[in-house]
Amino acid sequence: MSTNSSFAARLAQLDLQLPLLVPGNNPFVATRRVGNLLFVSGQGSKRDGQALFIGKVGVQLDINQAREAARLCTLNVLAHVAQAVEGDIDRVKGCVQLRGYVNAVDDFTESGAVIDAASELLVQVLGERGQHTRTTIGVSSLPRGFAVEVDAVFEMT
Amino acid sequence: MSTNSSFAARLAQLDLQLPLLVPGNNPFVATRRVGNLLFVSGQGSKRDGQALFIGKVGVQLDINQAREAARLCTLNVLAHVAQAVEGDIDRVKGCVQLRGYVNAVDDFTESGAVIDAASELLVQVLGERGQHTRTTIGVSSLPRGFAVEVDAVFEMT
Amino acid sequence: MSTNSSFAARLAQLDLQLPLLVPGNNPFVATRRVGNLLFVSGQGSKRDGQALFIGKVGVQLDINQAREAARLCTLNVLAHVAQAVEGDIDRVKGCVQLRGYVNAVDDFTESGAVIDAASELLVQVLGERGQHTRTTIGVSSLPRGFAVEVDAVFEMT
Repeated sequence: MSTNSSFAARLAQLDLQLPLLVPGNNPFVATRRVGNLLFVSGQGSKRDGQALFIGKVGVQLDINQAREAARLCTLNVLAHVAQAVEGDIDRVKGCVQLRGYVNAVDDFTESGAVIDAASELLVQVLGERGQHTRTTIGVSSLPRGFAVEVDAVFEMT
Repeated sequence: MSTNSSFAARLAQLDLQLPLLVPGNNPFVATRRVGNLLFVSGQGSKRDGQALFIGKVGVQLDINQAREAARLCTLNVLAHVAQAVEGDIDRVKGCVQLRGYVNAVDDFTESGAVIDAASELLVQVLGERGQHTRTTIGVSSLPRGFAVEVDAVFEMT
Repeated sequence: MSTNSSFAARLAQLDLQLPLLVPGNNPFVATRRVGNLLFVSGQGSKRDGQALFIGKVGVQLDINQAREAARLCTLNVLAHVAQAVEGDIDRVKGCVQLRGYVNAVDDFTESGAVIDAASELLVQVLGERGQHTRTTIGVSSLPRGFAVEVDAVFEMT
């Protein structure tokens, strides 16, 4: 495997690291492939299984912290994709769709700026292939009190 | 049709019953198939057309009631899938994605536990094929005041 | 191109006009095609790039204004679809799924009526092909303070 064809190598170039995936006791799965689409479950901001960035944006967290949370959610998405392709980034043809959910106060208008951090990370890691469609919404709560959650659909070779 | 190949028989084994579908006057449809994907519209907790479990989780409803609502939403999803495959459960290859929306107070952190009831039901009914990806969010309101709403994408043979 | 095969002609018959698309500086794209599915990013209510219908339904906007916002969101969705098919409406086989997000007060129960305006417009423009599945949720905030956001997945020929 060449440097350019592994997720780990590409992330190392960017000084990023995929979080370890700590299996939970969930009645659902993290990824499921149908045809050439790979669906990824909603990811919170966990580092190596530990929940971080808990709270509401505009109360406990500011926009920069929320952007950091969005990046961590996206790294968890990528960790699951990497697992699905056994680390071979070349088997990912692209990201089709990303959805970002921001647990924020009800007059929050900057959820786009928060989820931009997720979008930018995807494009950094995947380049042209990372060009995705996106929907961002502000929500009144998230599981475990996460500030941000991200899910995605990828196209596989 | 053998016992194992009908939705009704599988549900009867589990002591569950699909709700009757009462056609509404909606400007959209309950299911649409494209290729081998079947998209299902968001379902509230209706029993035989009657809206139940109305209110906000954390105010009018507790977690157990919300879990009951999530199960009823999922039975409505399955009723529409059953209709789309004319009752033949063997034509359902799997559930690809489930999304659960919980109409809850804004410091609610247990939406995962609520939607687990939907996930568990899917796996009970479909077995291995029911292993889906999932996104759960807390929302500030739902149509008609439903406490829970569930939508899904299935893979068909 | 015959009258019936262009988006512009069909909309003119209905006395509707597609908004101009003003490219933003976004780290994501408006549409992405995979196989015969076209994913469209969440659209707010912009007319020719200008954000309209800002505020919360039940406070700054009433249901009729929210329905107008939902129509404008949907016209933006259609403008992006039209661009993706270079104006040829015959290349759109159908709308598979529409999601509508209503930024409303937390006891709002009429989000279905708001998003009906989006669904009705789709069916007006696309006829039978516009028959889509739908999910509607009430959300606590939206990017820029939009009252309504709509995204969609289309099937292409």
